[in-house]
Amino acid sequence: MTSLTVPDYVPSPAEDCEQLNLAFAGWGTNEDLIVNILAHRNASQRRAIRDCYPKIYGNDLLKDLDKELTRDFEKIVLLWTLDPSERDAVLAEGVLRKWHSKDSVLIEIACTRSSKDLHLVRQAYHACFKRSLEEDVAYHVKGEFRKLLLPLVSAYRYEGPEVDMTLAKLEAKILHDKISDKAYEDDELIRILTTRSKIQLGATFDHYNNEFETAITKDLKCDSDNHFLSALRNIVLGISSPTMYFAEVLGDALNRMGTDEEALTRIVVTRVEVDMEAIKEEYHTKNGAPLYKAIKNDTRGHYEDMLLALIGHE
Amino acid sequence: MTSLTVPDYVPSPAEDCEQLNLAFAGWGTNEDLIVNILAHRNASQRRAIRDCYPKIYGNDLLKDLDKELTRDFEKIVLLWTLDPSERDAVLAEGVLRKWHSKDSVLIEIACTRSSKDLHLVRQAYHACFKRSLEEDVAYHVKGEFRKLLLPLVSAYRYEGPEVDMTLAKLEAKILHDKISDKAYEDDELIRILTTRSKIQLGATFDHYNNEFETAITKDLKCDSDNHFLSALRNIVLGISSPTMYFAEVLGDALNRMGTDEEALTRIVVTRVEVDMEAIKEEYHTKNGAPLYKAIKNDTRGHYEDMLLALIGHE
Repeated sequence: MTSLTVPDYVPSPAEDCEQLNLAFAGWGTNEDLIVNILAHRNASQRRAIRDCYPKIYGNDLLKDLDKELTRDFEKIVLLWTLDPSERDAVLAEGVLRKWHSKDSVLIEIACTRSSKDLHLVRQAYHACFKRSLEEDVAYHVKGEFRKLLLPLVSAYRYEGPEVDMTLAKLEAKILHDKISDKAYEDDELIRILTTRSKIQLGATFDHYNNEFETAITKDLKCDSDNHFLSALRNIVLGISSPTMYFAEVLGDALNRMGTDEEALTRIVVTRVEVDMEAIKEEYHTKNGAPLYKAIKNDTRGHYEDMLLALIGHE
Repeated sequence: MTSLTVPDYVPSPAEDCEQLNLAFAGWGTNEDLIVNILAHRNASQRRAIRDCYPKIYGNDLLKDLDKELTRDFEKIVLLWTLDPSERDAVLAEGVLRKWHSKDSVLIEIACTRSSKDLHLVRQAYHACFKRSLEEDVAYHVKGEFRKLLLPLVSAYRYEGPEVDMTLAKLEAKILHDKISDKAYEDDELIRILTTRSKIQLGATFDHYNNEFETAITKDLKCDSDNHFLSALRNIVLGISSPTMYFAEVLGDALNRMGTDEEALTRIVVTRVEVDMEAIKEEYHTKNGAPLYKAIKNDTRGHYEDMLLALIGHE
């Protein structure tokens, strides 16, 4: 469920543009007004504002926001204002330009979006960057990570309800054998994780967890410095329990020395309109304290205001 | 340009269904009538006939055709009647069920369709087979062929006009180095062929051909028993000169001991509504005789009638 709150009376896009333009006018910027408007408009309303703004003021709204805002507040407002598929394309390109094996953004996008949405991300990537997503993955990522990430971002997984239990048992055993042998880069292990439908993989992971007595996510957790192992674990968690995955990333971003604002911003803007309420619940259970408290502790100013507005805790 | 001829007056789908049902009625089947109707309707008209038929007769048209027809004539009528993306999905699944490294069907579909059309094939594959195309490729194909075919069928290549000449020169050299070293299964060679846009690859191949004095297709032709090498050559030819590729496949299917009806049928039904006129010209130039003559020499009966009707030579 979404945590977005949209007012009963939503002003017309032209009225919103006028208010945003007022917020930019004169010395200083009225950040509160920007939060008040943008943090309370859904994707199609924001799209309408973006389409309307240049017709009235001749400028691109994102460019004006970019000019007026700074730092973490700028980043969250810009990312939030984008269409979901465009935003994912921008996030993916951002990590690819300075790719590091510990980045989980590509895995997150590839494993927690629907097949249709992942295809929309690939379309948006064409439009934004004049290249394909998989072209950039193959170009920037080398070795075993390329072998894993290329099929992952190129997948168009089947999404029907069919489960083949014989196959699930067979492939659970393959996964267990390979993981026991520490053969993490094995072709068959990668084939199973990158091509099977999520429902089929759910059955495979369930069988693994029951048959071999340890959860597959636990078997993949033995070494936190092994980024490839973490990648495999993120794939399994992102596919089987996206809510837990997102709560865990938020926990890691907040409960550490120095907040990871990049991850915090990313999870909030990408999940607000999808499943933020479930993520907040999961976060609370996992950490014994509500998400908004951790955000209040760790962030400041308009960035904090924007985060709290988006998760529904103003 | 299409070789399809559609009559000035096209009967309504219901009238076509009535005639088809007459063709099936009583003892024996009126194959001429089937050719007369179906070989002269475009994809959307055939779709309308397929949608209309069960409403009148309660049966699926394809099942009735399957019951009434036999052998090569049956195969060509069934394949022709399908939607283009559904037909490609059926062709791909057909080769995957009994995959052999000399099959070029997957390469043909992956390299000669537009990015959008290849995505439609993947959607149709979901609908027809309750699995994804790449899932079946990864499952049925092993080793170096999996490494090549999986990214190929999963690609969503960028289709804009941009060419990076520096990159083209750099990657032409990589291709040349790898081919000279017979390192055909090299990661970089496969990355370039499977992810770059077709226009970018065109520039890369042009640079290869000019800089290294032998055409890349020639460098990839040294050993016809090496199926992997043939696969690479088919990729290059399918991407850079699809018309030549199709004319070559038709030539191989016809000018040999025992016609390859499978390839002949496939190329005809998949190209009639796209570029069959150009393929016929290329075939004529290459073989010194028109395509219809070779078809008349090599095929018989209603199968021959259907082929000639489709290529516009009744």
